[in-house]
Amino acid sequence: MEPVAVIGASMTQFGQRDAWIRELLADAGIACLADAGVESADVEHLYVSNMASGEFQGQTGVMNALAHDLDLMPAYAERVDQTSSSGGAGIYAAWRSVASGASEMSLLVGAEKMTHKTTAEATDVIASITHPVEYKHGLTLPSFAGLTARHYLDRFDAPRESLARVAVKNHANGVDNPNAQFRKEVDLETVLESPIVADPLRLYDFCPITDGSAALLFCPESVAREYADEYVVIAGVDGATDTHVVHERPDPTVMGGVVESGQAAYEMSGYGPEDVDVAELHDMFTILEFLQMEGLGFAERGEAWQLVEEGYTERDGELPVNTSGGLKSKGHPLGASGVAQAVEIYEQLLGEAGPRQVEADVGLACNVGGFGNCVITTIMEVGA
Amino acid sequence: MEPVAVIGASMTQFGQRDAWIRELLADAGIACLADAGVESADVEHLYVSNMASGEFQGQTGVMNALAHDLDLMPAYAERVDQTSSSGGAGIYAAWRSVASGASEMSLLVGAEKMTHKTTAEATDVIASITHPVEYKHGLTLPSFAGLTARHYLDRFDAPRESLARVAVKNHANGVDNPNAQFRKEVDLETVLESPIVADPLRLYDFCPITDGSAALLFCPESVAREYADEYVVIAGVDGATDTHVVHERPDPTVMGGVVESGQAAYEMSGYGPEDVDVAELHDMFTILEFLQMEGLGFAERGEAWQLVEEGYTERDGELPVNTSGGLKSKGHPLGASGVAQAVEIYEQLLGEAGPRQVEADVGLACNVGGFGNCVITTIMEVGA
Repeated sequence: MEPVAVIGASMTQFGQRDAWIRELLADAGIACLADAGVESADVEHLYVSNMASGEFQGQTGVMNALAHDLDLMPAYAERVDQTSSSGGAGIYAAWRSVASGASEMSLLVGAEKMTHKTTAEATDVIASITHPVEYKHGLTLPSFAGLTARHYLDRFDAPRESLARVAVKNHANGVDNPNAQFRKEVDLETVLESPIVADPLRLYDFCPITDGSAALLFCPESVAREYADEYVVIAGVDGATDTHVVHERPDPTVMGGVVESGQAAYEMSGYGPEDVDVAELHDMFTILEFLQMEGLGFAERGEAWQLVEEGYTERDGELPVNTSGGLKSKGHPLGASGVAQAVEIYEQLLGEAGPRQVEADVGLACNVGGFGNCVITTIMEVGA
Repeated sequence: MEPVAVIGASMTQFGQRDAWIRELLADAGIACLADAGVESADVEHLYVSNMASGEFQGQTGVMNALAHDLDLMPAYAERVDQTSSSGGAGIYAAWRSVASGASEMSLLVGAEKMTHKTTAEATDVIASITHPVEYKHGLTLPSFAGLTARHYLDRFDAPRESLARVAVKNHANGVDNPNAQFRKEVDLETVLESPIVADPLRLYDFCPITDGSAALLFCPESVAREYADEYVVIAGVDGATDTHVVHERPDPTVMGGVVESGQAAYEMSGYGPEDVDVAELHDMFTILEFLQMEGLGFAERGEAWQLVEEGYTERDGELPVNTSGGLKSKGHPLGASGVAQAVEIYEQLLGEAGPRQVEADVGLACNVGGFGNCVITTIMEVGA
C-alpha cells in the first residue's frame, strides 16, 4: 500500500480567543491549504476533530459549516470525536481515508472553543467522559491525576520536584512557540508553591483551558510529490482503548491504551522507541508525561522521572519532549490538541521549527483521551 | 481491493425507551455480535454513530463506555458524527477501516436517546445544525420542509394527497416491523386532517422523536466466508455535502448531496438506479422521499409524486421504498437511523425480512443529515 503523506500544516494562536468555533476552524483550514498550495476544489474529504461544539457553543454540524466556509462542497465531511484525543483520532481517520483509496486529498481541522465557559462549567463537560459512579464521588480527571501522582511518587521513590521539572521544561519550550497560550518561563519554586489543586499536584502541574485550532493535509505519497519538495510521511498510526472505569485497571501507573497504541504504531512503522528523535506527549497533567515516557518505551518502568531530572527530555537532550511547549504551556483546546502535536512534529521534521528546532528524522505524537480511556500514537518521518 | 462484507446486523425496539444511551448502544452491539457469531475479542475497531449524547444525556465518551460494556478493549473506538446522517457516516467509516487494512473486524453501533426531552428541547438541539441566521428567522428543519413541499407541489402541479400517500405507505410497511415505533396503519384522511405543523405539511408528514439503536458488523469478504454462508457486500458507498445555508442553494427541489453521493455510489458499484431492487430513503418529512427518488434517478425531476400515486414504491411495486416503515413509522433516533436503514437492506437481501420480504439482490440506503447538508448513499448486494 502506498504511504500516506502530510503536505501542509497550520495552527492558530492558542489561548483566550474572541472567536467562534467556526472562525477557529476556518482560520486553521485556510492556513493549511495555503501552506500546502492546494486549492479548495482539490479537497475530497474533510475531517473535523472536535469534542463538544454542541455543549460549549450550542453549534452542531460544524463539519458542514466548515465545508461551506472553505468552499469545499461537495467534499465529504465528518466530525471525529474521541474526547480529548479527538485530534489524534482525526489523524487516524484521515490516514484511513487516503489508505482506503476513498480520498486523494483529506483535510483535517481540529478545534475547540472553551474559555467563554467558567472553569467549573468546562470541567463539568469534560468530566462527562468519566464513569458516572466515579464522577459522583468527585473523581474528575484532575482528581485521578492527583491520586496517580501520589501513587507514582511513593512507589518509585521519586521526588515531588521531578514532576515540577516537567512544567518548568515545557514552559521554557513554550516561550519560543509564537502560538503558545503561555509564553513565560516558570521556575521550580513557582510550580512547587502554586495553589494546590489535587494533592500532590498544584496549579502549574495542569494544562489550562484553551481556545484554538490546528490543521493537517493528507494525500498519497505520489500526490505529495506533485505539490511539495519536502513532506512528511505517516510511518505508523494506531489507537487503543482502556476501560473508562479507572478503578478497575490493574495498575494505576500503566496506561494500557498508551502501551497498546504505541506497540501497534511501532510495529506498523518498523521503528522502535530508540529510533524516535523528538516526541510530543500529552502532558495534560505533569504526571502523564512520566506515564507516556514509560508506556512508549522511552524509559523503564518507574524511571521516567530520573530521565527528566537528568535533562534527557530537554530541547538539547537525547529525546526532546514537548518542544512545542506541550499542552502545559501551549494550551489544550481538546479537539485541536492532537492535531497541534502532529503539527509540531511536522515542523521539526521539515526544519521549520525556528528557535525550537531540534535534529530529527523520526518523530512521535501521543494523544490521550479521558484518563487514558483512548489513546492514539502517530509516528512520522521525513518523506523520501 | 478486496470487497468489504457485512456479516451481522441488529436493531433494538425503536420508540420511547426507558433506557440510557449506554444501554441502547450495548443492546444493539451484543445482538449484532450474536447474530454474526463473532466474539468480542475479535473486534478490532468500534465506531459509534451518535449526534448528541452530550446535549441529550450529559454523557460523552460513549465509544469508550461501549468498548468497556462489550469488553472490546483494547479495540480502537471512535465516535462518528454527521448530525442526522451519523449512521450513514458510520457505515462509510467502518467501510474505510476495513478497506484501508486497519481492521479486519469493525463493529458499528448507532444510537440516540431523545424522548426524555420535550419536543421543543429536542428540536432546539437539532436546529443547531442549521445556519444561525436562518434559525433566528424561524427556519428549523420542519420549516424548510414546509417551504420546500409548497414549492414542489406548485412547481410540478402535484396534488397534496401525493405527499400523504408516502405516510400511508410507510405506516402500512411499519405494521410488519416488530421494532417500529408506530405499528399502525393510517389512511389518507387521517394524514390530511392531522394538525398543521409547517404548511402544507401536517403532523403525519413528519417522523417522530425516537430512542433506539442499530448495529452492523464489517470485515473483508475473505473473513466473511469464515463466519457466514450468507452475507452482504458493500458494493458502493460515498458521501457528499451541500451548503448548510439552504437559501443559497440554486434549486430548492434538488438536494445536491443526494445527487453527488448517489452518483459516486453508483459509479463505485457499477450499478445504476435501474438495478436497485429495494431502497430505504430518509423520509424525515414526506417531501424528502420525493426529492431522494428524483436525486437518485429513480424518477424524473418533478415526477416522483406520480410514481408514488401509481403504487410504484409499494411493497408489491416496481421499487419498494421504505419497507421497514421508514423514519416515518419506524422512528428516527438520529445516530441509529442510517444504520437501521442498512439493517433493513441487509435483511431484505438475505431473505430475513419476514412479512416485509420483497425480492431483492441489490439494495440502496440514503441517509440525509440536516436538510441535505450531508448525505450518504450506500449500495449493498448479496455476497457471492
